[in-house]
Amino acid sequence: MRFTSDNIASAHPAIFEALAAANAPDTGYDGDRLSRSLDATFSELFGTEVAALWVATGTAANGLALAALCPPHGGVVCHAEAHINCDEAGAPEFYTHGAKLVTVEGAGGKLTPATVAARLDAIPRDVHRVQPHALSITNATEYGRVYTPDETAALGDIAKARGLAFHVDGARFANAVATLDCHPGELTWRAGVDALSFGFVKNGGMSAEALILFRPDLAELVRVRRKRGGHLLSKGRFQAAQILALLEEGRWLANARAANAGAARIAQAAGNRLAEPVEANELFVRLSASEAARLRAQGGEFYDWGEGLARFVVSWDQPEAEIVALAAALAAL
Amino acid sequence: MRFTSDNIASAHPAIFEALAAANAPDTGYDGDRLSRSLDATFSELFGTEVAALWVATGTAANGLALAALCPPHGGVVCHAEAHINCDEAGAPEFYTHGAKLVTVEGAGGKLTPATVAARLDAIPRDVHRVQPHALSITNATEYGRVYTPDETAALGDIAKARGLAFHVDGARFANAVATLDCHPGELTWRAGVDALSFGFVKNGGMSAEALILFRPDLAELVRVRRKRGGHLLSKGRFQAAQILALLEEGRWLANARAANAGAARIAQAAGNRLAEPVEANELFVRLSASEAARLRAQGGEFYDWGEGLARFVVSWDQPEAEIVALAAALAAL
Amino acid sequence: MRFTSDNIASAHPAIFEALAAANAPDTGYDGDRLSRSLDATFSELFGTEVAALWVATGTAANGLALAALCPPHGGVVCHAEAHINCDEAGAPEFYTHGAKLVTVEGAGGKLTPATVAARLDAIPRDVHRVQPHALSITNATEYGRVYTPDETAALGDIAKARGLAFHVDGARFANAVATLDCHPGELTWRAGVDALSFGFVKNGGMSAEALILFRPDLAELVRVRRKRGGHLLSKGRFQAAQILALLEEGRWLANARAANAGAARIAQAAGNRLAEPVEANELFVRLSASEAARLRAQGGEFYDWGEGLARFVVSWDQPEAEIVALAAALAAL
Amino acid sequence: MRFTSDNIASAHPAIFEALAAANAPDTGYDGDRLSRSLDATFSELFGTEVAALWVATGTAANGLALAALCPPHGGVVCHAEAHINCDEAGAPEFYTHGAKLVTVEGAGGKLTPATVAARLDAIPRDVHRVQPHALSITNATEYGRVYTPDETAALGDIAKARGLAFHVDGARFANAVATLDCHPGELTWRAGVDALSFGFVKNGGMSAEALILFRPDLAELVRVRRKRGGHLLSKGRFQAAQILALLEEGRWLANARAANAGAARIAQAAGNRLAEPVEANELFVRLSASEAARLRAQGGEFYDWGEGLARFVVSWDQPEAEIVALAAALAAL
Repeated sequence: MRFTSDNIASAHPAIFEALAAANAPDTGYDGDRLSRSLDATFSELFGTEVAALWVATGTAANGLALAALCPPHGGVVCHAEAHINCDEAGAPEFYTHGAKLVTVEGAGGKLTPATVAARLDAIPRDVHRVQPHALSITNATEYGRVYTPDETAALGDIAKARGLAFHVDGARFANAVATLDCHPGELTWRAGVDALSFGFVKNGGMSAEALILFRPDLAELVRVRRKRGGHLLSKGRFQAAQILALLEEGRWLANARAANAGAARIAQAAGNRLAEPVEANELFVRLSASEAARLRAQGGEFYDWGEGLARFVVSWDQPEAEIVALAAALAAL
Repeated sequence: MRFTSDNIASAHPAIFEALAAANAPDTGYDGDRLSRSLDATFSELFGTEVAALWVATGTAANGLALAALCPPHGGVVCHAEAHINCDEAGAPEFYTHGAKLVTVEGAGGKLTPATVAARLDAIPRDVHRVQPHALSITNATEYGRVYTPDETAALGDIAKARGLAFHVDGARFANAVATLDCHPGELTWRAGVDALSFGFVKNGGMSAEALILFRPDLAELVRVRRKRGGHLLSKGRFQAAQILALLEEGRWLANARAANAGAARIAQAAGNRLAEPVEANELFVRLSASEAARLRAQGGEFYDWGEGLARFVVSWDQPEAEIVALAAALAAL
Repeated sequence: MRFTSDNIASAHPAIFEALAAANAPDTGYDGDRLSRSLDATFSELFGTEVAALWVATGTAANGLALAALCPPHGGVVCHAEAHINCDEAGAPEFYTHGAKLVTVEGAGGKLTPATVAARLDAIPRDVHRVQPHALSITNATEYGRVYTPDETAALGDIAKARGLAFHVDGARFANAVATLDCHPGELTWRAGVDALSFGFVKNGGMSAEALILFRPDLAELVRVRRKRGGHLLSKGRFQAAQILALLEEGRWLANARAANAGAARIAQAAGNRLAEPVEANELFVRLSASEAARLRAQGGEFYDWGEGLARFVVSWDQPEAEIVALAAALAAL
Repeated sequence: MRFTSDNIASAHPAIFEALAAANAPDTGYDGDRLSRSLDATFSELFGTEVAALWVATGTAANGLALAALCPPHGGVVCHAEAHINCDEAGAPEFYTHGAKLVTVEGAGGKLTPATVAARLDAIPRDVHRVQPHALSITNATEYGRVYTPDETAALGDIAKARGLAFHVDGARFANAVATLDCHPGELTWRAGVDALSFGFVKNGGMSAEALILFRPDLAELVRVRRKRGGHLLSKGRFQAAQILALLEEGRWLANARAANAGAARIAQAAGNRLAEPVEANELFVRLSASEAARLRAQGGEFYDWGEGLARFVVSWDQPEAEIVALAAALAAL
């Protein structure tokens, strides 16, 4: 019963086929046929012209996106528990050359126009204070919650009104789209989003993530900075192939739906132990220390998430038996 | 007849087997069994205790190595045509936070104790001048030349005498070892090398390179900086698997020998057109513009390398027919 | 009645005499007789061997100190309202190359061993989280409070226990020493402090602040970084002269005592309107909007400090008439 | 006979009067009356609208200027012996966050359109190479040579044609203007210059230099970065006062003319020992080791400048007796 992270899951079989198919010589870096096709493929997916770059990690995608949207002397408004603030070892500061993460609290890892506005209003507009230049949200959030298209658009509105660029960390973007059953454009450019870190690795991928720029004018700069960050792989076709394999036949959505469905089943069993509504593939379950120990004794693997709380993440390939077993174990506590 | 770069070559079949074998869930990042085995595997290969980290590019390996060896206010002595100086879009400056590359000229892309000493002697020891803290060489060099163990050790001696850390960019380290037929330790730690960017991708790999630290005390710092650079992949086992597949059964050496042998055959045909001795898998051939055009008309693909010079790179998997054809074409010019 | 800041105050007459006296040619940068005397002068003042560097601003002193104590990938624990976090436009991030300010809340702008420990305990010790490397406090604080020698030493103890370097932003260090009537060593090295930004400009200076390193082994590095930050003035003797002029005849303490005494007189008049005990030269006074307007109509100049609060700063040269007038005006509200 | 540097010279008496006059309380930072007057004063001097900021060093002026004109991933074309490349401890790299200085050789420390073009042409326009974004020259140069208005304009033309911003390091700008007897606008904005580091300290100043932006749209950004660099002094009026004092009554030009005239007199005596034409206040004189020793025995103070060369700098306040004595000593060698 491994529910520690969707990072530990396997890669989808289609990835392997795609890698094998890509193994003929082709131009290096991102000059190959597959890499060159990404802009068009993602433009079609999103219904608008985008630039799409592969990178090896979500941390790199986030760092490159934020560096394109915020100058070294600027600030990035984000949730206090955002991955970029807590789990990337300062990569945003590294990529932006020292921009400041300006944090906002809020339930479920979510920002609202009101909390963002309050934070901005507290910053005097003078040369002594770091002035925010960007807003970054995570969808689905670090607490497995989603921003609806309307919620995203409301944040996009305040970003625009306050002169902030708008970034979405979409490590689990597929899970959000699957839950909301909406067009991916509604969670991004139609809502004012400038850049999306579009996660594939947690969702059946192997080692390729996508950075989507809804402002293609930023692409040249970001491609330079990708190289400068050591993220321009020599045989880029193997990166592009992975992403394309998951886009084909809607695998990215099927994988996310599978993970979400597993989480929903477990959520039912967890009942009012849930600290957060389950809107994607993560569950935050109230467990006493002894209950957590009991679950672990039954083979449960998961992270403690602060006092009396445990996090369970369901992967795209989670065996049904494990889902059933965890649900039963939780119900039986 | 594609001889533009060993970057365009295919990945070795063993890579694909290894990736498939690694596709069971395991701990994320570098906590998996394969990643954790790298230190021991490379320690055995080099005959001394090392720390070994996978990264996705040689540029990242170089950047992380230099950042560990040189502070932001320091300098890195390197050849004026070194990859780190010319072909990494400023990644060394990015990773080191602005250290200065202090360049030295020299035939064949090679440094010597004399040229290094002259450069160092020209720098006054005061607070106004950037003081070098590291020395970096490329072996095999950007001109397909190798540093022998003795030459490397002589540079290691001056590095030590002048208080410089010593880094080797080994994008084609395997080719150098194959040519010199020496123990890899002789080109590294026995010669005073502190860190090696050990290239696999140009040598039959897919998307994993190794950074070898001969000072394992640096490993903790470099692991943090790897994460901070966005280079800690979530499913690291797929990185480790690639490297291990090329180390097994001596594939890394076999691949390099194949590429070197192809280059040697072409070199014979090129005769006194060669601008540099061929000591690895690259050839620098004097061609007039019309000769270059004629070769291209015959299907030759290669880079112009300044006025009247062309670069040909032979890959590990270069078809014999292409080698024969290029040799014949050069001989017939 | 100008009480907006001690930044607006005049420079002490002795400064002008010292500048004039320093106007003979002497060696450039910090090679002159006066600059070279600083180490010894401050070593005597603090009763231990220190290195002392002039800089032009407290922000530079803080940035250089933090960069010497915390690597780019590290964190600096400080109060959420610390000057380094709120009022330096990201200079600490600039000088440290992106270190993260890890903030702690607390009354009076003060940290305690308990609040620091709680913050540290919440940070998992892994590669994904920025690990704190330094602790920074402001004494006197941004709320005009002081840390006693014991309080400072208790923070020094936890810093040492947790492997953190310890920095004091002493923009108003003189005011703290004057209030506590203690040896300056008790608030610094005897309490485990590694570096002090020793402010002079707010205390009768003109354009020179001192950075005191209680670890003289850091001096060489900091001198290099001072130059690299553009803070090594060409005619450094004019910087040193200013500082020495304020150290002579105990002017730094006399000035601070004068400012503190003025604040104490106003505090008495402000009575229970005070939001913070007045322990240095700043007062935080509860004022309704209409009361603030009334004061301003009477010629009062001061900053609003959030909802219903106003900040008054008394300068070393504040005319007695202004002190009396403000006290009367507050009492009459 | 102190001719080591114009850094060691005294400050002009008018500076002291101006400092005393500025010693009434005024708004902090650059909000005071004097600082606020700089834009207008320099706009009048240059005959166009400029933004003018005081800083404490030429290194800071250069760093801030380059950071405004070149992104972290860009390059700055400059002479190999430029102050920014050799004598600022990497400050340009620090302020630009790692931009690369792309160096060009040339007699007299001078660049020409031809040498700049050749350097630019050698850089492939791809993502692997650092692309230059700015051009920086020093006028007068590090070898005491000047760029005429025509020469400057020709460089401005190539800068514009190649998309480079154009910066002038004018540590000795006054000396160049004095020699050329031209309008300062001819050496700057009329020639396409975007930013000028306008030196005052070597020319009778104390601790204030000016950064002149001929693109006032950059001012807001540079003011933020000045604060972030720790260069926004609290009592900025003392900075502005110094600069204004030297601008008044044409002191800046009178001082430069005095220094230039002294150099010219010595040049006559030095005759064909001169390695460079003397066009400002520096002399580069061929001296054998024994000749140098003899001069030093006579009380001569100067720097060796490589093999068989010595540098003499004449200051604005150089006593006539020293000038006469050095001239005689050189003639007598």
